[in-house]
Amino acid sequence: MPIDMSWSGWGDPAEATALGPEVRELLRQALGVTAATPAVAREDLHLRDSRLGDDARERLAAAVGGEHVRTDDETRVLHTRGKSTPDLLRIRSGQLDDAPDAVALPGSHDEVLEVLRVCTEARVAVVPFGGGTSVVGGLEPRREGFAAVVVLDLRRLDRLVDLDEVSRVATLEPGLRGPDAEALLGERGFTIGHHPQSFEFATIGGFAAARSSGQASAGYGRFDERVVGLRVATPRGTIELGRAPKSAAGPDLRQLFLGSEGAFGVITAVRVEVRPAPAVRVYEGWRLESFTRGARALRRLVQDGPVPTVLRLSDEAETALNLARPSELGAGGGGGCLAITGYEGTAEDVEARRAGASAVMREFGGEPDTDAGESWEQGRYRGPYLRDALLDAGALAETLETATFWSGIDRLYEAVGGALRETLTGLGTPPVVLCHISHVYRSGASLYFTVGAAQSGDPLAQWRTAKAAAGDAILAAGGSITHHHGVGVDHREHLARQIGPLAVDVLRAVKATVDPDGILNPGVLIG
Amino acid sequence: MPIDMSWSGWGDPAEATALGPEVRELLRQALGVTAATPAVAREDLHLRDSRLGDDARERLAAAVGGEHVRTDDETRVLHTRGKSTPDLLRIRSGQLDDAPDAVALPGSHDEVLEVLRVCTEARVAVVPFGGGTSVVGGLEPRREGFAAVVVLDLRRLDRLVDLDEVSRVATLEPGLRGPDAEALLGERGFTIGHHPQSFEFATIGGFAAARSSGQASAGYGRFDERVVGLRVATPRGTIELGRAPKSAAGPDLRQLFLGSEGAFGVITAVRVEVRPAPAVRVYEGWRLESFTRGARALRRLVQDGPVPTVLRLSDEAETALNLARPSELGAGGGGGCLAITGYEGTAEDVEARRAGASAVMREFGGEPDTDAGESWEQGRYRGPYLRDALLDAGALAETLETATFWSGIDRLYEAVGGALRETLTGLGTPPVVLCHISHVYRSGASLYFTVGAAQSGDPLAQWRTAKAAAGDAILAAGGSITHHHGVGVDHREHLARQIGPLAVDVLRAVKATVDPDGILNPGVLIG
Repeated sequence: MPIDMSWSGWGDPAEATALGPEVRELLRQALGVTAATPAVAREDLHLRDSRLGDDARERLAAAVGGEHVRTDDETRVLHTRGKSTPDLLRIRSGQLDDAPDAVALPGSHDEVLEVLRVCTEARVAVVPFGGGTSVVGGLEPRREGFAAVVVLDLRRLDRLVDLDEVSRVATLEPGLRGPDAEALLGERGFTIGHHPQSFEFATIGGFAAARSSGQASAGYGRFDERVVGLRVATPRGTIELGRAPKSAAGPDLRQLFLGSEGAFGVITAVRVEVRPAPAVRVYEGWRLESFTRGARALRRLVQDGPVPTVLRLSDEAETALNLARPSELGAGGGGGCLAITGYEGTAEDVEARRAGASAVMREFGGEPDTDAGESWEQGRYRGPYLRDALLDAGALAETLETATFWSGIDRLYEAVGGALRETLTGLGTPPVVLCHISHVYRSGASLYFTVGAAQSGDPLAQWRTAKAAAGDAILAAGGSITHHHGVGVDHREHLARQIGPLAVDVLRAVKATVDPDGILNPGVLIG
Repeated sequence: MPIDMSWSGWGDPAEATALGPEVRELLRQALGVTAATPAVAREDLHLRDSRLGDDARERLAAAVGGEHVRTDDETRVLHTRGKSTPDLLRIRSGQLDDAPDAVALPGSHDEVLEVLRVCTEARVAVVPFGGGTSVVGGLEPRREGFAAVVVLDLRRLDRLVDLDEVSRVATLEPGLRGPDAEALLGERGFTIGHHPQSFEFATIGGFAAARSSGQASAGYGRFDERVVGLRVATPRGTIELGRAPKSAAGPDLRQLFLGSEGAFGVITAVRVEVRPAPAVRVYEGWRLESFTRGARALRRLVQDGPVPTVLRLSDEAETALNLARPSELGAGGGGGCLAITGYEGTAEDVEARRAGASAVMREFGGEPDTDAGESWEQGRYRGPYLRDALLDAGALAETLETATFWSGIDRLYEAVGGALRETLTGLGTPPVVLCHISHVYRSGASLYFTVGAAQSGDPLAQWRTAKAAAGDAILAAGGSITHHHGVGVDHREHLARQIGPLAVDVLRAVKATVDPDGILNPGVLIG
């Protein structure tokens, strides 16, 4: 069984990071951070009693085995909400009102079906749970109208069911975390190549349900682009999709369950394209004169090739603060903007793409930054640990992301950064706003913003105000409310504005068909 | 205005082809074709009167202009059904029971909305019509329960609305035929690169609504993969989708309207990724020892690269009959299997990929076939004209296609070919069955079958029996009932078996949401 993440923050408690005195001084000077804001002590957390009735509990136990229905405080706390900054602020202050009444751990697809049947009859809400890494309120169901809330932790569904080496397709169960899936595939010489920042804790099912995009998406594609088949357990039964990579057999219903965030069903198997494990991996840094010029270089690469496996670009502020190298936070930079280009593949393929892409970077004035590639690689999963330390130190730190077409990137960048600066400055906490292009496509790209500010007296309200302004700015500038974090509860209203009421009705109709009683992750994705 | 296709067959009547005496002799010897089966004379077609009521007609005229509501026989005949062999057999025998009662030609999105409103109120079925090239009964609505059937011909929606050269995204109206769209984009130096066999007559809207895949899909991708945005007019209003190439903002609803075949709405604008028009185009032929070995070569290319722009492989029978070179039908071949590799791009790109792919073809024993590439290019849109000539000559000729993962390709190939041979032989008309791999993906490929036999006394029933057996074999072998022809009426029952009853309920729920009265292409896609 994989380790649980820290109740009050990200990841493995043993990996928690601490801020050095120079960073604390930087926070004081740049953001006006003064007082530390530690979490409450674990022993001061107080959980109300589980509301799960004895009958429902017995029936759940019959479905998954008595030892796989947990109502102990420890388990309930560890399955409370996800890992957004608002989630952490709440649990760090002792708010446990979203704690589930029980956690069920099914061991098979049929057990999932049975849990859904029991919960439908008992009017119990079900929250599918993979790694618990949601940063958009994806694990924060509406409780009204339900007798209880059960988290369905999928960690026991952790098999590599099949590896079709001819088709290069693996069938994986949803509870497999990123490293475990890669280890199973690696033994056979394959990889998915999907490495989001949450890689160490997030799961195959979560990657699919929330349309994850990895740091090597330029080379491997997004996770949803790699999925060729899904098995979904719903309260009305099973749906199996995917008899070919692509077809004209009507709407692609895989794309309806990808991104459904547990609201339409529980994904119990994912068929995903795999690639031969790369023989060579190279990550390099480039300094470019400006974000605008760097963005043009990235666009040239993705539109005309050769396309690196990893392709990212930090703006001037992020480069200066060196968040691309969290291990060196505060060390300062040489100005301009830092891009990361990475190549994974055979030696020949890597060399050819590297030579071609390097020539393009030089054409746009890029200069190699010797250590940046290695530094990026070392820190690629460290961001969330840093956030925990910042929250402890009295800073507010959070990220948000969006995407649009290339012609709208500059406008979107200005609009979102402007909204965040204006709002937080208006609240008396002038922020630092950093941004990078995290994912590129032929026709567009994503923007990933990191915001730091001093915590106000009510940091939850503070962030809610800033986040709403950012979301409004995203929609006004033509962007998507999220590129790869998903919708959850936090983006639900903006999603509705983005796609319009009729499209929301379509989503509601789909949900009503597969989940007539609305027990699946109520309030997530759609209201 | 574009020319209409022949009422009794494919395409431009001026381009109709005739079979030479040597081909007729081949048909006699190989298939036992004896008597010619010409179509009835145009003047012998008898159309029942239009059932469109005066009130509805007046309201439609108010919506789109009086001159854009047509009830003349000529227009109604030219909008009767599509171009499948059953469609042609029926109209060639004088069956016009599926003729629409009127044809309306809206000039704008708002006019489409108004037509849908009028038809909902008047209980009139609406059949969206692009190029009229459906080969799966996509233009054959259920009439029961409707006062009349109106075809919505989208040819007046023929603008290049916008070309975003930075993002390389064009916004096109649905009525643009392939060549017209390419001409508009070509003036600006861009191409979609989408060239299905129906290219000369099919439309942008049809490509999207039916998930078309072009002959250069290895290089450019399928049409649905290139679509980044859609505007859809439904009886309940407008849906606009696509603020970024990809996002995690819930299910990808674009993928619900792509492949919806007019049953969920009328696509009135398509935002599609474009590419710079290629400076160089090269098409080459390769002889390979067997279909199995050739398929391995194609798989190697698409999985490990370099990937040609066009990549196809005929089986032994198709190679022998040289249907890859329709102009030389019957000339015989040198044995083995013919593959076509094509390259489009800059000179440098074409040369690099060509060198790499040629090395792979040689590694698999491939030998260049000097004229095959050019011959394929010249004949690439000619197949349907040949079918008309075969139908005239007393032969039954039709195509069907499927797709699956690479590991299942051999089984699918044997199963479908076997079912067609067994069924048609059992009916006393032993067929010739040809096949080629028409589209390749990293994890799978499509198989495109061409069937020829002597027409029996009831060729419609004859083909229905063979087609049902092929469909059953496809499902039993794990394939998709269609790769790029779509569902229409002909594949509806097999689609339901493929995705299962709950997934069909999902499709029904979506339709009920956007088209509560069910006026849009009733009976197409879902029952």
